[in-house]
Amino acid sequence: MNYKIALIKGDGIGPEIVDEAVKVLNQVGEKYGHTFDYTRVLMGGESIDACGVPLTDEAIAQCKASDSVLMGSIGGNTTTSPWYKLEPSLRPEAGLLKLRKSLGLFANIRPAYLYDELKAACPIKDEIIGDQGFDMVIMRELTGGLYFGERKTVEENGVLKAYDSLTYDENEIRRIAIKGFEIAMKRRKNVISVDKANVLDSSRLWRKVVEEVAKDYPEVTYSHMLVDNCAMQLVKNPGQFDVILTENMFGDILSDEASEITGSIGMLSSASLSETSLGLYEPSHGSAPDIAGTNQANPIATILSAAMMLRYSLNLDKEADAIEAAVKAVLKKGLRTVDIMSEGCTQLGCKEMGDAIAAEI
Amino acid sequence: MNYKIALIKGDGIGPEIVDEAVKVLNQVGEKYGHTFDYTRVLMGGESIDACGVPLTDEAIAQCKASDSVLMGSIGGNTTTSPWYKLEPSLRPEAGLLKLRKSLGLFANIRPAYLYDELKAACPIKDEIIGDQGFDMVIMRELTGGLYFGERKTVEENGVLKAYDSLTYDENEIRRIAIKGFEIAMKRRKNVISVDKANVLDSSRLWRKVVEEVAKDYPEVTYSHMLVDNCAMQLVKNPGQFDVILTENMFGDILSDEASEITGSIGMLSSASLSETSLGLYEPSHGSAPDIAGTNQANPIATILSAAMMLRYSLNLDKEADAIEAAVKAVLKKGLRTVDIMSEGCTQLGCKEMGDAIAAEI
Ligand SMILES: CC(C)[C@H](C(=O)O)[C@@H](O)C(=O)O
Ligand SMILES: CC(C)[C@H](C(=O)O)[C@@H](O)C(=O)O
Repeated sequence: MNYKIALIKGDGIGPEIVDEAVKVLNQVGEKYGHTFDYTRVLMGGESIDACGVPLTDEAIAQCKASDSVLMGSIGGNTTTSPWYKLEPSLRPEAGLLKLRKSLGLFANIRPAYLYDELKAACPIKDEIIGDQGFDMVIMRELTGGLYFGERKTVEENGVLKAYDSLTYDENEIRRIAIKGFEIAMKRRKNVISVDKANVLDSSRLWRKVVEEVAKDYPEVTYSHMLVDNCAMQLVKNPGQFDVILTENMFGDILSDEASEITGSIGMLSSASLSETSLGLYEPSHGSAPDIAGTNQANPIATILSAAMMLRYSLNLDKEADAIEAAVKAVLKKGLRTVDIMSEGCTQLGCKEMGDAIAAEI
Repeated sequence: MNYKIALIKGDGIGPEIVDEAVKVLNQVGEKYGHTFDYTRVLMGGESIDACGVPLTDEAIAQCKASDSVLMGSIGGNTTTSPWYKLEPSLRPEAGLLKLRKSLGLFANIRPAYLYDELKAACPIKDEIIGDQGFDMVIMRELTGGLYFGERKTVEENGVLKAYDSLTYDENEIRRIAIKGFEIAMKRRKNVISVDKANVLDSSRLWRKVVEEVAKDYPEVTYSHMLVDNCAMQLVKNPGQFDVILTENMFGDILSDEASEITGSIGMLSSASLSETSLGLYEPSHGSAPDIAGTNQANPIATILSAAMMLRYSLNLDKEADAIEAAVKAVLKKGLRTVDIMSEGCTQLGCKEMGDAIAAEI
């Protein structure tokens, strides 16, 4: 089969890590008899530099015409890069937000788990992590809430006042809740829905709809947790979580906290899914402009994002398995990029790590 | 001198821990020649049971007529307690939100630091914490943002839709920023202001006003951090923080995460301040209904909250020092409540811990 992949290399380490993911994808294609046709799509800083805006209509059309989108990372140093002198709607991140909305990518899946081999990198004490480690998925709503509500800044009686709004309707909540319970069915069958129902109307509606959806999944146990408590529980006992289901802003905060708790954010992939098979796949980490171009970046999160793409958008399960197994194999061999390096292991650059994983396929 | 203290015992372990704080306060009064007159004020569940609402106008008036308010904790088990069958505006927490607004308590100070003696309880690995440990204060805006914006839930074309709004004006931001920089001047002179300026208009206004205020504090170094990054950095390197300055909802989440990172939330006090000397002082932890009445609660956070009250509302610095020194002394002696118990120490109940601290005064 032939698949059309839109490739957003982006900024900072984006180009390097995407190149390695392409290397691995091509190897998978060779082995399993697929071809991947890549279309370079500009977004973020690279698009600002080339086209004056962080995402053009043409770029959106190119993504829509593809089977899936694979992305590196966007954005630069917010204090030194000229991109951040532009007005907010023209900055790199605005491109990503626009793409999420344009492609209807309402479901963001961010896995956070501890690799056995990387336990040493985990910032949490062994007594807390225990022998089992932890393995959770954050199912974050991605096209609603504070991110896409109306906003304005106005002067009232000589005083500047800023407004943002947080809205959710029951359909938006229902479709993400269904995604959360569906993924739980393929995992340990537990959903913890996170909200701030003691304060927000949107959270109370969230709770109500989640309870309705839960009725259709009698095998899944579920409970509600307040967002402040969840921020504590992630540190106190990460092993209690299977699927965390939450709205956009809370998901932004909690998924970053959860990634950090693994101690190896360079390993964590993410998927943003729509109602169709079109999805966007990207590492959970950022564009790390300070190490861009130095061959130090860890390409594994992007390579695993490519595996998620095969699984969720292209329905190529065994091909996805092959990539994941290859990553496990190089870790077992003690190969490491600098961010996950530990004593007794062999340190590789970004390219060499890509080569090593491709070689395992 | 004679001081009038409004005493909100509240729910769960609230009454037990407040009793111990009163015991210590009276001891301080005896030693330094002050008297404290206490007025019991009902709030939360106890007020619902007695008056049908979580906070009466009379209760507010009693607080306003006092020099300061000392509180235990409010709320019960959200799944089993009948209080949570009531509509949201009648639940225990609504009383606390109403009190914050009525007393103009816009500045919430939550210290989070590692006690040398309790390092073992810290969930973060020693390599990360280092020899210095960490010692930060979260300065959270408490009467604006999503907590007090307009909200509604309506049916539009047969679909339920919920609205919450997040607004800040420059005056609200300026007064909390000033509090943040002021407290930094008395500490290590560093402020990290946390927002989500890549998405929210309110955060962009926040940043602008913080930058203006910073100009008046040339000795204080400051920087901006995105909230998702802050949630990571608290785990990755808590030692980097001195004062975290942030808006209401982000402060709710981050301060709970920071408390958990100390591993001894039973030790952490908090203060909510207004434009006048009237303030509300309470432990950072909740009402722990599961252990209420069993003499197991740790009264130290409430006792330290009483110390903060002496310092910030009553201007009794050396009296506050005396309480803090007494707490350090009992810890040095190896006295512990069950939540912070470790091998080789002596376990005490809530009452006995109060006695021990009072005896040190
Ligand atoms: C870049 C930014 C707008 C984005 C977000 O807040 O969603 C990022 O933090 C993320 O989580 O993907
Ligand atoms: C009880 C609740 C409304 C409150 C809040 O969210 O502010 C609590 O979590 C706190 O942080 O004091």
